[in-house]
Amino acid sequence: MKTQPTSLRVRLPVFVFLTEVIFVGLYAFFVTYDEHANARFQTNHTDHMHNAVYTDYPFFTDIQVMIFLGFGCLLAFFRLYGFGGMVFNFLTATFAIQWAILVQGYFQFSHDGKIHLGVINLINAEFACAVVLISFGAVLGKTSPLQLLVMALLEVPVFAVTEWAVLKYLKINDAGGSILIHLFACYFGLGVTFVLYRPRLNEGHVKENTSYQSDILSVMGTLFLWVFWPSFNSALTLKGDDQHRAILHTFIGLSASTLTAFALSAMLNKNGKLTMADVQNVTLAGGVTVGASVDMMISPAAAYVLGMLGGTACMLGYKYLSPFLARRLRIQDQCGIHNLHGLTGLISCTAGICAILMATEDVYGPSLYEIFTHRAPVEGDPKLHELQMLIPGLQPGLGRSAQEQALYQVAAVFSTIGVSALGGILTGLVLRLPYLASPSDDFCFDDEPFFEVPPDYDSPLKLNNTMTADDTDA
Amino acid sequence: MKTQPTSLRVRLPVFVFLTEVIFVGLYAFFVTYDEHANARFQTNHTDHMHNAVYTDYPFFTDIQVMIFLGFGCLLAFFRLYGFGGMVFNFLTATFAIQWAILVQGYFQFSHDGKIHLGVINLINAEFACAVVLISFGAVLGKTSPLQLLVMALLEVPVFAVTEWAVLKYLKINDAGGSILIHLFACYFGLGVTFVLYRPRLNEGHVKENTSYQSDILSVMGTLFLWVFWPSFNSALTLKGDDQHRAILHTFIGLSASTLTAFALSAMLNKNGKLTMADVQNVTLAGGVTVGASVDMMISPAAAYVLGMLGGTACMLGYKYLSPFLARRLRIQDQCGIHNLHGLTGLISCTAGICAILMATEDVYGPSLYEIFTHRAPVEGDPKLHELQMLIPGLQPGLGRSAQEQALYQVAAVFSTIGVSALGGILTGLVLRLPYLASPSDDFCFDDEPFFEVPPDYDSPLKLNNTMTADDTDA
Amino acid sequence: MKTQPTSLRVRLPVFVFLTEVIFVGLYAFFVTYDEHANARFQTNHTDHMHNAVYTDYPFFTDIQVMIFLGFGCLLAFFRLYGFGGMVFNFLTATFAIQWAILVQGYFQFSHDGKIHLGVINLINAEFACAVVLISFGAVLGKTSPLQLLVMALLEVPVFAVTEWAVLKYLKINDAGGSILIHLFACYFGLGVTFVLYRPRLNEGHVKENTSYQSDILSVMGTLFLWVFWPSFNSALTLKGDDQHRAILHTFIGLSASTLTAFALSAMLNKNGKLTMADVQNVTLAGGVTVGASVDMMISPAAAYVLGMLGGTACMLGYKYLSPFLARRLRIQDQCGIHNLHGLTGLISCTAGICAILMATEDVYGPSLYEIFTHRAPVEGDPKLHELQMLIPGLQPGLGRSAQEQALYQVAAVFSTIGVSALGGILTGLVLRLPYLASPSDDFCFDDEPFFEVPPDYDSPLKLNNTMTADDTDA
Repeated sequence: MKTQPTSLRVRLPVFVFLTEVIFVGLYAFFVTYDEHANARFQTNHTDHMHNAVYTDYPFFTDIQVMIFLGFGCLLAFFRLYGFGGMVFNFLTATFAIQWAILVQGYFQFSHDGKIHLGVINLINAEFACAVVLISFGAVLGKTSPLQLLVMALLEVPVFAVTEWAVLKYLKINDAGGSILIHLFACYFGLGVTFVLYRPRLNEGHVKENTSYQSDILSVMGTLFLWVFWPSFNSALTLKGDDQHRAILHTFIGLSASTLTAFALSAMLNKNGKLTMADVQNVTLAGGVTVGASVDMMISPAAAYVLGMLGGTACMLGYKYLSPFLARRLRIQDQCGIHNLHGLTGLISCTAGICAILMATEDVYGPSLYEIFTHRAPVEGDPKLHELQMLIPGLQPGLGRSAQEQALYQVAAVFSTIGVSALGGILTGLVLRLPYLASPSDDFCFDDEPFFEVPPDYDSPLKLNNTMTADDTDA
Repeated sequence: MKTQPTSLRVRLPVFVFLTEVIFVGLYAFFVTYDEHANARFQTNHTDHMHNAVYTDYPFFTDIQVMIFLGFGCLLAFFRLYGFGGMVFNFLTATFAIQWAILVQGYFQFSHDGKIHLGVINLINAEFACAVVLISFGAVLGKTSPLQLLVMALLEVPVFAVTEWAVLKYLKINDAGGSILIHLFACYFGLGVTFVLYRPRLNEGHVKENTSYQSDILSVMGTLFLWVFWPSFNSALTLKGDDQHRAILHTFIGLSASTLTAFALSAMLNKNGKLTMADVQNVTLAGGVTVGASVDMMISPAAAYVLGMLGGTACMLGYKYLSPFLARRLRIQDQCGIHNLHGLTGLISCTAGICAILMATEDVYGPSLYEIFTHRAPVEGDPKLHELQMLIPGLQPGLGRSAQEQALYQVAAVFSTIGVSALGGILTGLVLRLPYLASPSDDFCFDDEPFFEVPPDYDSPLKLNNTMTADDTDA
Repeated sequence: MKTQPTSLRVRLPVFVFLTEVIFVGLYAFFVTYDEHANARFQTNHTDHMHNAVYTDYPFFTDIQVMIFLGFGCLLAFFRLYGFGGMVFNFLTATFAIQWAILVQGYFQFSHDGKIHLGVINLINAEFACAVVLISFGAVLGKTSPLQLLVMALLEVPVFAVTEWAVLKYLKINDAGGSILIHLFACYFGLGVTFVLYRPRLNEGHVKENTSYQSDILSVMGTLFLWVFWPSFNSALTLKGDDQHRAILHTFIGLSASTLTAFALSAMLNKNGKLTMADVQNVTLAGGVTVGASVDMMISPAAAYVLGMLGGTACMLGYKYLSPFLARRLRIQDQCGIHNLHGLTGLISCTAGICAILMATEDVYGPSLYEIFTHRAPVEGDPKLHELQMLIPGLQPGLGRSAQEQALYQVAAVFSTIGVSALGGILTGLVLRLPYLASPSDDFCFDDEPFFEVPPDYDSPLKLNNTMTADDTDA
């Protein structure tokens, strides 16, 4: 049977080549090398080993593995949508990074009318890409690759503007991106899936299940994310002890949420067995919950508690909240991103605010004002001069109190949620336009509309039918 | 059919939450940041890039990949135990690392009543974790996750005490951990499996086999271990040329054992075909055999020979020794850890002793006393002063001769084997306690008791049966 | 059925042990440590952190992942040749690296009659190994492991001599190895497969297809290569901004070829669906096309265009050129290496020549003469002295003009293609010798001749037959 309405033969090339030509034009006119990548800026004082590439690139490769292999394998958990999960992730991520280099570049890395490119831009673009991929999780299996590209096209600028506005005007602490990455991605994705609501899918779908191999593959994705998550949370922190703490807290948080996930998975299953979906998702919750305070002096024990809380909230979300959202609020959150990124993101923000309120010079020493840059005294304040004796190069701040900083964090949470949900809803409306090759309900969670599939595709199911027939005979 | 006795519904949460609460308490009271992770210790002389995180973290991530993806995939080789191999590895490893941070911290990283935490502790804890996972190999498929957690709970302290005592009192050279990691893990695991002997399994088990996909997955695990093993063997060596040599020797040793494994696999197979189990295991033998002398000036050729010897011993062990151990000595060594870690560990120790006996200032220059710290002259010896002119900061040692050092190595080997075997036997007795959800013989090597399995689980087998029936009809 | 003629029982051990013994001898007599790995060369001025291992090792591990996991998974795409693809890659790669250390060592790293070994040699050897593995792609599934080892034994020296001669006498710029690695490997492989022509395979082979799992595994291989390719292209560039640019360009080029591959895959498919072989291969084309100019100031937009061109050429090659080569020129290029490495390599060389012709001091500043070392003024030229004021330590060059350098590049391209094709043809003739266990046509793309296969081997196919029968009945 031909599935004409989902044919990508014309639509995908038109979209891709059009954007490629525009991108090339923009790269040609507006993108140049930053000072660490430009040969002309090398003088006889340059120590080549002091190039930023040596501090940034190791984190970049780790995050690359997370984006392409981690997300790719994790999203390949459906029995008949392994190609889709892994390959659409590849396509969407590549597109999102290219686009984010331009959009973030315009907002964050441009001066003299040019975007200055270095590996640091790529890291930032991979964060924007992670946002898109998390949102993708909400609509996995129900969208064409063209819809995903359009989503990325719209989500990246909304994200980049929000990121820029929050960092520039609200000036928050959010090293692990709990607010800007996880909450944004979650509520954007929920907005999209709300608009793309498919009532028939609430009755269950014959293809909405896993196979033995797809479950294993998906766990591999989880492990890639788990192993390199400390790099994700620490890539943009201050160098030195901040980055060191970010790594420690992320590891501890993840390991606590992992044990919690296993315990709750067995406890909430009526046969006392482990459920692979929990192993694949809930184990990662701690990486999000430590995010907003990941570089602060919260103590290892607090990171542990955050991991436990994250695992618990995420698990209960999967068990009780997701079905409720789908049935009552028309929010079909395919991968449960609201559990893994939303609930945990909120916990993380709360923890971050507590950590900010409790941060004192007693604990941090003068480097308090390096971590909480906006609490540093304003230009002209004698206290600033005093601090600069202790920390040469300390920048003047805004002289915010801890309480003020906390309020800005709260403002950032609400405005991020608002903007992202609205952006998601509008994007969802765009995705409902015709000609975007959206699959019909019957062809959800199915590779066949978009891929030439090998002969053994779908054999396990057919096999089971065959066997059932045999069993009946016997 | 319900498999009640293996239900984890109550047991696993009780164990996990209990240990989590205790761990949180211990972390809260006893764990603080080390000087490289503590904001307060940053002064105006601190160069952030000199933080230990930049030398330790790259090795940490490499070892993370080995632990979670390497071991995880390698242990997933059984056809119907892929979930178990990969997921129990995940659970056990996470638990073991958390616990090792505390126990090793108490013995090695505590002062002023606090454990001081940095990435270096995580690396040490991953080594303790590797010990547990190697021992896990002996009982793979025959233990419940709860038994594995109890094993980790007991093995980590026994290991940490042994490690501490051997390093503090015997003061040995063992950069790659051939004695402390591989021999300890091996004989502990053999002790456990000796006690958990299941006579019926000696007759062969219908599920004790691989599938095409599980074999490939397991090779991927081997490759992850193979690729990053140089980081494992060099993570704790002295910086500079020592670490450089450790990397070179590990690579050369592994590549020699790999070629040897292929040659012997074909040679010892009656059809002249390669056996996947050999590719998965024997190829790695060289990583162990170079371990004890991995940072010494043994010459590249010696590393090559050690790899060949390791591959040969390991292969012959699989072929002849393992069946003998299972039938005669009641030691059912599921993954053949005695071949991959025991025999090779013994070769490595012997090689290490030879290398120690042959180490002279002619070959090493004055840095002899940095590598073999215990051979450095004692405090007050004029020779020490002389050496400190050549190597500023050289620490006084014990003035041991090469022969003395060699004897201490021998003592370490025997005491490690003794303690670990005894610890393993006692642990095995604990694991035989009721309520630990041990699977019955029929449900060994089977994911069903502990996992909700997808519909296609076990289909290949049923398929073969179906087909056999069909063939008979035709 | 016994497949005697392919038994490896005697042949493989004889070959492996013989070469191992010779290798050990050569390592023992000729290989020593380089100054960064030798304890004796450490003085009281040595800063251990300045050891070359810290700049080289991170690139080495990335390339290790590419070689063993990237190539390994990518080549496992055949349904019944997953063991062969992954495991023969493992064997061949290991052998090739060992051998390349010796051969390249002789030509590039020897003085005082010794080969001086450090991690830098391993990186170079992995490049030689990549050459062998690319060539392997041309004959995948049609050669025994013994033939592959013999191919590696012959290809490595031909490559090492060519590399040495081109770098020493023609003195070209080729940071990403487009000429020396990709073009060499491609035409060598085509030469081999030309001689090993099997007419019957042109009619299609029942086993020459993929399965759902093998396609996913192969995409994972692609992703490993994709993620770490920037390390491959930048490993041997100058430190600092050169390496930085190489990373940026590779990433941009790959991402452009990826989007292009998706667009063309849908466009050229009659059902408007994506083809997994395109996702697995064409996406990588950009990594090759940016190669020859990867460290130059070509601008990010140019890297983007190169990626698009590479993707397009590679795709059209798969679609139109490969079938033509197989049918008319007797060149059965199994993985289409001529598309992914040949056509793209030629584009890359052309782009490199353009970049060389356009390189001026205006754009590069004085570091022009560091990147294009052969354009630096000759010893004695006053301009050299002037430049050395700006860049201390600048080496005297050959005073070549841009045009002269371009001509040398052209010469390198033609001589590399000529030598490699000839070498491939001669190697192919050697591989046709008897006793090399070459599989018969029927046993091509089949693991059975060389592996003990598990019971579910080939079940999907049999399954389909069974089901077809059932369907007919119904």
